[in-house]
Amino acid sequence: MAKLYHFPLCAFSRRIRLALGEYGREAELMEERLWEQRQPFYALNPAGAIPVFVDDDETVVAGTEACGEYLDETRDRDRTQTSLIGETPAERAETRRLVAWFDIKFHSEVTLNLVYEKIDRRYMRANQGGGAPDMGAVRAGKENIKYHLDYIGHLIEDRNWLGGDRLGHADLAAAAHLSCIDYLGDVPWERNDAARGWYTRIKSRPSFRPLLADHLTGMPPPAIYADLDF
Amino acid sequence: MAKLYHFPLCAFSRRIRLALGEYGREAELMEERLWEQRQPFYALNPAGAIPVFVDDDETVVAGTEACGEYLDETRDRDRTQTSLIGETPAERAETRRLVAWFDIKFHSEVTLNLVYEKIDRRYMRANQGGGAPDMGAVRAGKENIKYHLDYIGHLIEDRNWLGGDRLGHADLAAAAHLSCIDYLGDVPWERNDAARGWYTRIKSRPSFRPLLADHLTGMPPPAIYADLDF
Repeated sequence: MAKLYHFPLCAFSRRIRLALGEYGREAELMEERLWEQRQPFYALNPAGAIPVFVDDDETVVAGTEACGEYLDETRDRDRTQTSLIGETPAERAETRRLVAWFDIKFHSEVTLNLVYEKIDRRYMRANQGGGAPDMGAVRAGKENIKYHLDYIGHLIEDRNWLGGDRLGHADLAAAAHLSCIDYLGDVPWERNDAARGWYTRIKSRPSFRPLLADHLTGMPPPAIYADLDF
Repeated sequence: MAKLYHFPLCAFSRRIRLALGEYGREAELMEERLWEQRQPFYALNPAGAIPVFVDDDETVVAGTEACGEYLDETRDRDRTQTSLIGETPAERAETRRLVAWFDIKFHSEVTLNLVYEKIDRRYMRANQGGGAPDMGAVRAGKENIKYHLDYIGHLIEDRNWLGGDRLGHADLAAAAHLSCIDYLGDVPWERNDAARGWYTRIKSRPSFRPLLADHLTGMPPPAIYADLDF
């Protein structure tokens, strides 16, 4: 069976887990704790980053962009599935613009400030940068998330999904990051009803269920996290 | 005519400039100084990042991944050009793994430490983070580049180009970053003959010529920069 090397609260891995569900692909989940620097993992991805997807035929697909594009390219063995990136070059450009918005901009402004500070640094040793969260970073993350919610609300005013008419990787990337922040209880959903409505829709999809079942030892999510009627 | 919003020593923009040359596409180069925060530019890319490609038909393609994939998708209007990403899903995954190696790992370990410190911060005001280079960062960048050169040398031992048999975006990404460092005279070419041999080949391509003509006012490159026999 195919395998996905991931970590439960890694937003990049979560996008690929959501994509697996949407494409109807199964994969065994292999939890990879990057800070343990396991040598066999470096053989799969010398860059030492997750996610890494290993397909049934042992093809190794390393890195978020590579995984997302690979799953889309190999989806339609029977030519029935719609692309989650888009049909025309212009649609595909818009999807990738928004994926970069979340994977680069949201990640550096929100996810790193909240998830890295509150989760990753708990697991790391002091000489790896571990320790208590930097509260300045946490405050910045909580401030920055506001305009990202507003941007999602702005996009969804004119569109069915973030990238256009159909659900796609723009939605998966946004939901992957937000779901990590939601696990911490740090998304101010009351701020933007349109953004909350969009998240309710994507949270209700079958592809989302495995994410809602994630549970880090010693750090359970708030009740709202798995509640579809939050 | 199509336009590319770029900055001469932005490695991401340079990959797309090289790609334009390899695909035989023409575009007017529009220099964008991000720290000036021009409002009309934010209308093109709300994330405020370069490169942005505006096609002949006004399609806006924002961000490095979007530009690279778009140019590849629109290359073969006459179905004669080979993909610079790869033909099979496995080849394409390998190209994208290596693009991420250079655009994420090399960028954070080398390019930011050298180009951002020595170039970008010269242009920025003090309240934007401008000022003299942080010499600790510069030293880290000069140290880190060594193993990246060795990794290029290691890849090229068994391959014609970095991603496989044919030149592709893995080469363009690597050359884009290295060419910025080379403009500063900070690539220790004597360290790895195989990496130097690969760079000699790509530097000699017609697509590279516009990059070799770049010249920042008050900060000329060393003679070696444009020398094909360096």
